[in-house]
Amino acid sequence: MEEKFVLKDKFIKQAQEISRGAELLPGGINELAIKLQKSAESGKPIRVKLGMDPTRPDLHLGHTVVMKKLKKFQELGHTIVLLVGGATAMVGDPSGKSETRPALTKEQVEENAKTYFEQMSKVLDTSKAEVVNNADWLHPMQLTDLLKLASNVTVAQMMTRDDFAKRYAEGKPISIHEFFYPLMQAYDSVAIDADIELGGTDQRFNVLLGREIQSAYGKPNPQMVMLLPLIEGTDGLVKMSKTYPEHCISLTDSAKDMYGKLMSIPDTLIVKYFSLLTDISDAELKDIEERLKTENPRDIKMKLAFTITEEYNGTQEAENAQKEFINVVQNKGVPEDIPSFKLESAMNILDLLLELGFVTSKGEAKRLIAGGGVKINNEKVTDTAMTVDIDNLPKILQAGKRKFMELTNG
Amino acid sequence: MEEKFVLKDKFIKQAQEISRGAELLPGGINELAIKLQKSAESGKPIRVKLGMDPTRPDLHLGHTVVMKKLKKFQELGHTIVLLVGGATAMVGDPSGKSETRPALTKEQVEENAKTYFEQMSKVLDTSKAEVVNNADWLHPMQLTDLLKLASNVTVAQMMTRDDFAKRYAEGKPISIHEFFYPLMQAYDSVAIDADIELGGTDQRFNVLLGREIQSAYGKPNPQMVMLLPLIEGTDGLVKMSKTYPEHCISLTDSAKDMYGKLMSIPDTLIVKYFSLLTDISDAELKDIEERLKTENPRDIKMKLAFTITEEYNGTQEAENAQKEFINVVQNKGVPEDIPSFKLESAMNILDLLLELGFVTSKGEAKRLIAGGGVKINNEKVTDTAMTVDIDNLPKILQAGKRKFMELTNG
Repeated sequence: MEEKFVLKDKFIKQAQEISRGAELLPGGINELAIKLQKSAESGKPIRVKLGMDPTRPDLHLGHTVVMKKLKKFQELGHTIVLLVGGATAMVGDPSGKSETRPALTKEQVEENAKTYFEQMSKVLDTSKAEVVNNADWLHPMQLTDLLKLASNVTVAQMMTRDDFAKRYAEGKPISIHEFFYPLMQAYDSVAIDADIELGGTDQRFNVLLGREIQSAYGKPNPQMVMLLPLIEGTDGLVKMSKTYPEHCISLTDSAKDMYGKLMSIPDTLIVKYFSLLTDISDAELKDIEERLKTENPRDIKMKLAFTITEEYNGTQEAENAQKEFINVVQNKGVPEDIPSFKLESAMNILDLLLELGFVTSKGEAKRLIAGGGVKINNEKVTDTAMTVDIDNLPKILQAGKRKFMELTNG
Repeated sequence: MEEKFVLKDKFIKQAQEISRGAELLPGGINELAIKLQKSAESGKPIRVKLGMDPTRPDLHLGHTVVMKKLKKFQELGHTIVLLVGGATAMVGDPSGKSETRPALTKEQVEENAKTYFEQMSKVLDTSKAEVVNNADWLHPMQLTDLLKLASNVTVAQMMTRDDFAKRYAEGKPISIHEFFYPLMQAYDSVAIDADIELGGTDQRFNVLLGREIQSAYGKPNPQMVMLLPLIEGTDGLVKMSKTYPEHCISLTDSAKDMYGKLMSIPDTLIVKYFSLLTDISDAELKDIEERLKTENPRDIKMKLAFTITEEYNGTQEAENAQKEFINVVQNKGVPEDIPSFKLESAMNILDLLLELGFVTSKGEAKRLIAGGGVKINNEKVTDTAMTVDIDNLPKILQAGKRKFMELTNG
């Protein structure tokens, strides 16, 4: 007689904790809870897939959303499978139309993957993860294999993918080979026998296709997917991305930069950042939501900035960053230890800002001055044609809230 | 100084003769004439591609339209490249949805190709043709090669192909792998360096894609295409095809069958059949068109039937077939030598017709009787329940215009 499967509360609770802020498809919390319970009962760990794009190895806080989830699975004894997209990276975009898909050599892929893992190891134990490269099974595929793979998906189905649908409707070209990227990514799930795949909400189509292709290749319990929200950059408007470096917090940012940038986020992002970027418990998160109703959000934001800065730069660095932030921004003071620059001859203010690396273009320098963001000895600079002379040195040049330079004569 | 290219009348005339009844794309008669002249001047033969589907090796007159064109090229010293679609045949339809694309083994492909060539050699000199199998270059293709190939065509472009557009509009599924068949066929043109590709008008999209893919792979003067009309079956309604065997004339049909079937075509097809299925000159064709205005079309049709029957069955057989046709159909007589069948016991007429192989189903037998097409001793059978008894044997049973059997008692 077949035993009746009774889902235990313990695993529902586990599933809820793991998936905080995330979307589970297609079966929701219960499907994950069942997987967790069956794994516990059988002693067979769940295989958790994460695909990585080795063309962009520089990680920012946005990437840690998914890593935090992996860490939770890892803590429960499950297997993390980190998939390096070597095949696709090495193919690049054969049409040469996309700059975001440059073709990489095998060495570049490996080098990038190494950098990726180093940064990742700040969040989870990469030494315990399985690391695989899809070039191993995708590159040797021949015509017959690829046609078999492609036969499982229809054009109409592929065209439901947001970006394809949009481009097709707008009359913008979609090359046939682009259909293969989702197919290859989906086949990866077959190759590594994934039970659950994690991805950003922008990966919805691709990761769900993985489930379908696993079914087509005969996997009885195909993968479910966990979709993670994309986190906004510090401006609270667009998703965090290297494209907007001023709103992007890199894992390699200094404690001071990280703390300062986190303090600049809009209050509306506080809970989301706590929820997705820190390890605080659900109870603590609830407490924060309560406190936000009565307390000054700035104080709670400082706790957020400290928590995250501490995780990536250590307690000491985080404390220093916090101290300096209070001194400079809150007390409008000048930080204690600021670097100095020997001003050998008079210079135009735009050239000087550029020279010091405070801006990346003269246009940015002009905008900064126009916004009142540039001061010399605490007096706003208003004229972009101003010459900073070498009289009365040293002077303190300030750009924005957190960049200072002592201009000296030697 | 560059010499000016002057196109000679001789080659325009050659191009016109070769392409009688066909469509030349993209440059029309002149593009072909230029190719012919340049070939004559350089001594480098034109490479003429014809793709063959080795899944259906049984040839009928419809297939000879394109073969006649190949023959003309061959007579002018050009190179015929007969392409066996081994790769696609061996792949079949991996989705298993199409019955017209069964997967064949290498041996089946070779066996079918052999049969194909044997029949083809009735029209042209296959021993002088280059025979290639696309499995040789398509099967070893790997991911990178295939993506490169696919990157040259957009989804929108692929969807302009008639059948894809139609199915997409009707909400019928198109599997992604189906996009690869035209791509592979187009790549064949790269592999064999074709200068012109021949195909039926239903191949318009595929053969034109060959030109485009050649360009993408860097061929300076990519192939032009010659589209041949699909010839109607003997009913004059739908294209000749094995699907309607009663209207289809196989190259292996007996002289008698071939002659009889040709005599059954509607008068409106006479010129088209002469033009596309025989080797008569343009002058003769013109003469026939004139004669049709005044003479009995039957006499001209007899010339057509004789010409074609003679080509595939020899003069003697064609003469016999003609003699018998005149005797049986025109003089309403019974042919001189008819086969006999020993009728051992009384039989229902439907069963008897089926037993003799005059019909393939009782339904067909009933329709034949209803149409007055079945006679015993020249008297029409009207009752489908009739019993043919064994009294007064021998009797002559006639089905349709050309099937006779002497029923005997021993």
